[in-house]
Amino acid sequence: MSLAERIFKGDIRAASRLIRDIDDEMESAKDELKKLYAKTGRAHIVGITGPPGVGKSTLVDKIIEVLRGERKTVGVIVVDPTSPFSGGAILGDRIRMQRHSIDEGVFIHSLATRGHLGGISRSTHDIIKVMDAMGKEVILVETVGVGQDEVAIANAVDTAIVVLIPGLGDDIQAIKAGILEIGDIFVINKCDQEGADRLEQELMIMLETGGRRTDKWQPPIYRTEALREKGIEKLVAGMHLHHNMLHQKGLHQRRERERARFEFLEILKSSLLNKLQQHLSRNGELDRMEEALMKREKDPYTLVEEIIQKILPQ
Amino acid sequence: MSLAERIFKGDIRAASRLIRDIDDEMESAKDELKKLYAKTGRAHIVGITGPPGVGKSTLVDKIIEVLRGERKTVGVIVVDPTSPFSGGAILGDRIRMQRHSIDEGVFIHSLATRGHLGGISRSTHDIIKVMDAMGKEVILVETVGVGQDEVAIANAVDTAIVVLIPGLGDDIQAIKAGILEIGDIFVINKCDQEGADRLEQELMIMLETGGRRTDKWQPPIYRTEALREKGIEKLVAGMHLHHNMLHQKGLHQRRERERARFEFLEILKSSLLNKLQQHLSRNGELDRMEEALMKREKDPYTLVEEIIQKILPQ
Repeated sequence: MSLAERIFKGDIRAASRLIRDIDDEMESAKDELKKLYAKTGRAHIVGITGPPGVGKSTLVDKIIEVLRGERKTVGVIVVDPTSPFSGGAILGDRIRMQRHSIDEGVFIHSLATRGHLGGISRSTHDIIKVMDAMGKEVILVETVGVGQDEVAIANAVDTAIVVLIPGLGDDIQAIKAGILEIGDIFVINKCDQEGADRLEQELMIMLETGGRRTDKWQPPIYRTEALREKGIEKLVAGMHLHHNMLHQKGLHQRRERERARFEFLEILKSSLLNKLQQHLSRNGELDRMEEALMKREKDPYTLVEEIIQKILPQ
Repeated sequence: MSLAERIFKGDIRAASRLIRDIDDEMESAKDELKKLYAKTGRAHIVGITGPPGVGKSTLVDKIIEVLRGERKTVGVIVVDPTSPFSGGAILGDRIRMQRHSIDEGVFIHSLATRGHLGGISRSTHDIIKVMDAMGKEVILVETVGVGQDEVAIANAVDTAIVVLIPGLGDDIQAIKAGILEIGDIFVINKCDQEGADRLEQELMIMLETGGRRTDKWQPPIYRTEALREKGIEKLVAGMHLHHNMLHQKGLHQRRERERARFEFLEILKSSLLNKLQQHLSRNGELDRMEEALMKREKDPYTLVEEIIQKILPQ
């Protein structure tokens, strides 16, 4: 039986194997992903993002618990911003979440990003597909990130949950603006801490004044204390509510369409660059170009134009 | 006189104009950048990165002050992770830094990233080139970021300064691992806060055990209290030290070479994707592909292979 067929039956070892192959960029992984694709598109994909230190992992841990109480099967992807050069794995407070690994209804994968540009979105998309094909009903994708990674996650999920805590410092203004429009649901975690009311008010004002949402969804703000399991049920109910809204208004299809296009272009971009890099390296052209750039005999803009002219003449 | 010629003379208005054109992705900007390229490669490019709330802006403000005391001209690029969708500008505590704008020896540009994937590195590279061609001796690039953005900055600068503060919470383990190998210099800011000693010790251990640096540079750790202007002179001296080391050991050329290749491939990637997207949109192919993906008649991996097969037949 192929990996894909075993994955359709929910085989965890086959899924782990394929994910490892995806991480290692094996050619065979692509063939399996091709087979999987037809059976994807059924899971509710939920992104959990926010700055470091807001307690995302604990929150995810508790969300899994509530979802399991509802007898839903869950896939979890944790994106670790590990060293861009060595690619080592991180443990830390994520270990706690691993207690769910003995539960057959939960499949957790921790993804080291290795610093490939565009790497987060590429592998994350692929691994979501694997869990989706396994039949996981809810897939939680946790990322630590500001900036680029947020866009990637916004394009990969149905429901984006943004987690904040009171008193994050000055840069929070910048963060808030950055996540305002990608958040479908906002969570104020550690809501027992001072400043929770102020943060909620600030968020409400920003959501009211800054919003240009075309889907008319009014992002709710939930207060949680993940460590004490407070507010988690309501948050999970909010997740379901958003999911239902997407389906009722036919917005789910629109998100799927945008996702399909984004994914396709991402795959195209990285494949094309790989192929081109191989191509240029093979006949030593890349080295010669580098030399010319170093000596300032040529500039990179002209070089790129020349190459594109050769490949896409029209 | 062309913008490029005016920029060579240090004309601030010409530089601002070109940077605006770069931000707006004007075709003409590329022509000017081509002209500039020959006169770049002279500045000392310093990246300042770290998680939100560590006081990077204040630190940059004080570093400018010390550099100006040394009569060095300074360029500053602040990368704001603004909303990926609306692209609005952020002010906040960065306003303070603007007091240097009236100083002719300082050129500050605040860059809203707009959520283009790969956008940070692309424009940042280009704007560094503009400031370099203006004759700025030191260029400071401040980014708020974990994950992808770090890699981009590591590839864009000569000296990468990583700023941390005591007590950043649990996720700091992940951050520390992520920045360990890109940091040439570490700063513990707000070093009067509790936990500074512990953070320094942790960092030292991580740098000793985790380091696989090929350049034999032992990254120093500086303690600062930016708000009270403590420790800034030593930090700036450390920047110069690292710069001198790069030149003495011939490592500067190696970094330049890596940077040239990285930049070239970045430009190639984004240009190629743009061109290809235009090409596919023109004859409605992209819409048809999207439709086939939505209906699960095709998978994106096969589609990409078919396109690449057409463009790069070998």
